[in-house]
Amino acid sequence: MTTAGDTYPITPRNRVRREPTRGSYDHASVHAILDAAMLCHVSYVLDGQPFCTPTLHWREGEMLYWHGSSACRMIRHLAVGAPACPTVSHLDGLVMARSAFHHTVNYRAAMCFGTAHPVSDPAEKLHALRGMVERFYPGRFDALRPVTAQEIKATGVIAMRIEDASAKARTGGVGPAPEDEGHPVWAGVIPVTTRIGADLPCPRMGRPLPRGGDLSRYPAGGELGQALTELQRLYQG
Amino acid sequence: MTTAGDTYPITPRNRVRREPTRGSYDHASVHAILDAAMLCHVSYVLDGQPFCTPTLHWREGEMLYWHGSSACRMIRHLAVGAPACPTVSHLDGLVMARSAFHHTVNYRAAMCFGTAHPVSDPAEKLHALRGMVERFYPGRFDALRPVTAQEIKATGVIAMRIEDASAKARTGGVGPAPEDEGHPVWAGVIPVTTRIGADLPCPRMGRPLPRGGDLSRYPAGGELGQALTELQRLYQG
Repeated sequence: MTTAGDTYPITPRNRVRREPTRGSYDHASVHAILDAAMLCHVSYVLDGQPFCTPTLHWREGEMLYWHGSSACRMIRHLAVGAPACPTVSHLDGLVMARSAFHHTVNYRAAMCFGTAHPVSDPAEKLHALRGMVERFYPGRFDALRPVTAQEIKATGVIAMRIEDASAKARTGGVGPAPEDEGHPVWAGVIPVTTRIGADLPCPRMGRPLPRGGDLSRYPAGGELGQALTELQRLYQG
Repeated sequence: MTTAGDTYPITPRNRVRREPTRGSYDHASVHAILDAAMLCHVSYVLDGQPFCTPTLHWREGEMLYWHGSSACRMIRHLAVGAPACPTVSHLDGLVMARSAFHHTVNYRAAMCFGTAHPVSDPAEKLHALRGMVERFYPGRFDALRPVTAQEIKATGVIAMRIEDASAKARTGGVGPAPEDEGHPVWAGVIPVTTRIGADLPCPRMGRPLPRGGDLSRYPAGGELGQALTELQRLYQG
């Protein structure tokens, strides 16, 4: 649970320098952005070379988890414990001003900092794998064909306690700009949303099976971020 | 223009290790993923600390450009020329298998590697700023209130020639898994798409203005990635 009022320390690495009025450091703002997404991008360094890898993430309190094969470069590298920066961002709209300079986008972004470690203890790993399913599809884990020891071994999970983080967001319409007012060009916002489509059942179901309560939160036409936010609330409730 | 058959060199940093059959190195595959998005995530290193910053990007041939204020940390850091890894990813669907192990997502991701430099020459910077508008909104730049020298100075643009890159994608339904077949749980794919919404005109337009041909590619209900792909074709045609 997020305790109201909790904030991350402001450090040189998470301080919002550009447009600081758009930044915030409270846990609730950062969590809301993380929880509305399924994918994050993780930055890490290997021999001075930065890598940016997209992967599935989920959260339990201040612990962020993300997925990767135990064979992949990121997992092998992070296995020793390494600084990482997972970031989640949402594009919410194209903001079309009357000047090039004031064009922008509406967005929400959370940058997190910490030291990433592989989850290697088998019990902890099983807990994490269950979380990876249950956080998105409540009740599904126990309905699935049970996991094997070999599968647990072959799945890589990384855990990182969020040490500091920042949230940054822009919302609303075209900002007021005295030097632009009256310029005769269309101005406004074109919203962007991530939508859930109609499901495509696997043709290899021997008999028709109900979609199941675990998927009821993904209605066709629904907004993915809203579904994921509600599901996180169920998971951490 | 992309020349058919061009491929990036395969190097230790871009070689796809995990699920190599999902990887490709041809320019066309990488460009298609970059061009279908407005936002990328850029990884860079500052004193050993990795950062992952979301920003607007656009492409001209093998040059990738991204936006940032000249005041921001990323721009100041990259000003000296620094290794960077911009990545673009698209979430296309949730793949719900009959076992936890085979759950996955459909996605497209492109990771690019190179040395990032700020665009500082004023003529080159004006070209880049024009590109930042025209690539997304063809014909709009000249219709806007003209840019000032101060605005050009205040806008940071980073350019990076793509030295090597990889594309990785998963498409299709639940993969065949003999050990899972017949397990009585719903399986299938829930597609995800990024959609354009109905525009919200700025209330400060003195008289009604037409939305303009530059925005005709963003129809309400349309798929953003498709619009951006077509617009890139117009821009680089």
